Amino acid sequence: MPQRETAPIEVTGFAWVPPFARGHVRDLRVRWALEEIGADYCTRLISAVERPPFYFGEQPYGQVPYYKEGDVEIFESGAIALHIAEKDERLLPPEPAARARAITWLISALNSVEPFIMDMVTIDLFCAGQQWATLRRPEQVKLLEGRLRHLAAALGDKDWLDDRFSVADLIMVDVLRNLSPDRLSVPRTLLDYVARGEARPAFKAALAAQLADFTPDEEGLPA
Amino acid sequence: MPQRETAPIEVTGFAWVPPFARGHVRDLRVRWALEEIGADYCTRLISAVERPPFYFGEQPYGQVPYYKEGDVEIFESGAIALHIAEKDERLLPPEPAARARAITWLISALNSVEPFIMDMVTIDLFCAGQQWATLRRPEQVKLLEGRLRHLAAALGDKDWLDDRFSVADLIMVDVLRNLSPDRLSVPRTLLDYVARGEARPAFKAALAAQLADFTPDEEGLPA
Repeated sequence: MPQRETAPIEVTGFAWVPPFARGHVRDLRVRWALEEIGADYCTRLISAVERPPFYFGEQPYGQVPYYKEGDVEIFESGAIALHIAEKDERLLPPEPAARARAITWLISALNSVEPFIMDMVTIDLFCAGQQWATLRRPEQVKLLEGRLRHLAAALGDKDWLDDRFSVADLIMVDVLRNLSPDRLSVPRTLLDYVARGEARPAFKAALAAQLADFTPDEEGLPA
Repeated sequence: MPQRETAPIEVTGFAWVPPFARGHVRDLRVRWALEEIGADYCTRLISAVERPPFYFGEQPYGQVPYYKEGDVEIFESGAIALHIAEKDERLLPPEPAARARAITWLISALNSVEPFIMDMVTIDLFCAGQQWATLRRPEQVKLLEGRLRHLAAALGDKDWLDDRFSVADLIMVDVLRNLSPDRLSVPRTLLDYVARGEARPAFKAALAAQLADFTPDEEGLPA
């Protein structure tokens, strides 16, 4: 486990989140990338309930993760994952064409897949039962399922988006983890793809580390 | 004008789009980046009305832009802009900390700002008048305006997101161009920021080139 107090990389996460969000906070992506290359890191935990005012000076929206490594400071899980990937060919192939494909898919996950999924999460979770959400749902399902069919076609019968695992898969798999396959038609190949990602030892270690960092439920509740 | 038939870079755009979309199709970002560094390119125009089936093999969602440069093939405007930026310090500073900040803001534009704006465009343009859109609008406005206030705070009184223009500003400005300031409270500093971006000669050349490539309206309408 590469989490170590004196590590030169510091990752900021939340001290507590409600149970449904555990394992889905985005510092998971950063921990996963660091585990894939065996890089040590330490964590700084802030309150998700009352974001400390100073923190908006580091992360403009008050979100996590935030990443410090010497004078390199990064927010946005996708940017941090890419920064880590640039350290190690296991996450980002050096050949120009393969590197470009990996960055293409990383950005595609963030800009062309995640927004559709987060709109669905808004409808099915955060605004469940609201009239607008009920009215909007059928069209949003259609948009998202269409997008997923195109993604499944691009994945084909490959294990990963390109010929081997890269940072693009790391981000895409975590983006797809927010799907609710019981409420949508998700192509079988995408479910298998997510399962392959989650089966990686680095993913499991990252997930365990995020869960272990949360304050037990009763202590974290807002007063 | 760097558009030239024999250029080694090929950018795929649409042959025709409805008037409201002109100047907002995302190959604009790619043309703008190429203009900033004076790189020649040629265009390949496909139908937005009936996307050619072969094209889904290149761009999984059938969208534009698509970028070819030798064996480097990229989709996602953000990934293409980053690829172009890596060619030239004017778009991406080489110092590690400044480079990381530029990539952070590029991804922030794509993953933390654009989704809020596109949800607003869905409500105010594509689904205007639909009951769900009317019901959802106040909360979506609140979310977007909050996000814009945080972004304005990060920009402060600087001309650009960091101490000089970079690919991050190129993407962020184009993302913000989809705001409707007459229907929202958009901080003055962000409007000025967009105006600064649009005043750049490279932006103007890119916009003119995109507009010039569209087939005149009457010829492009679906039969």
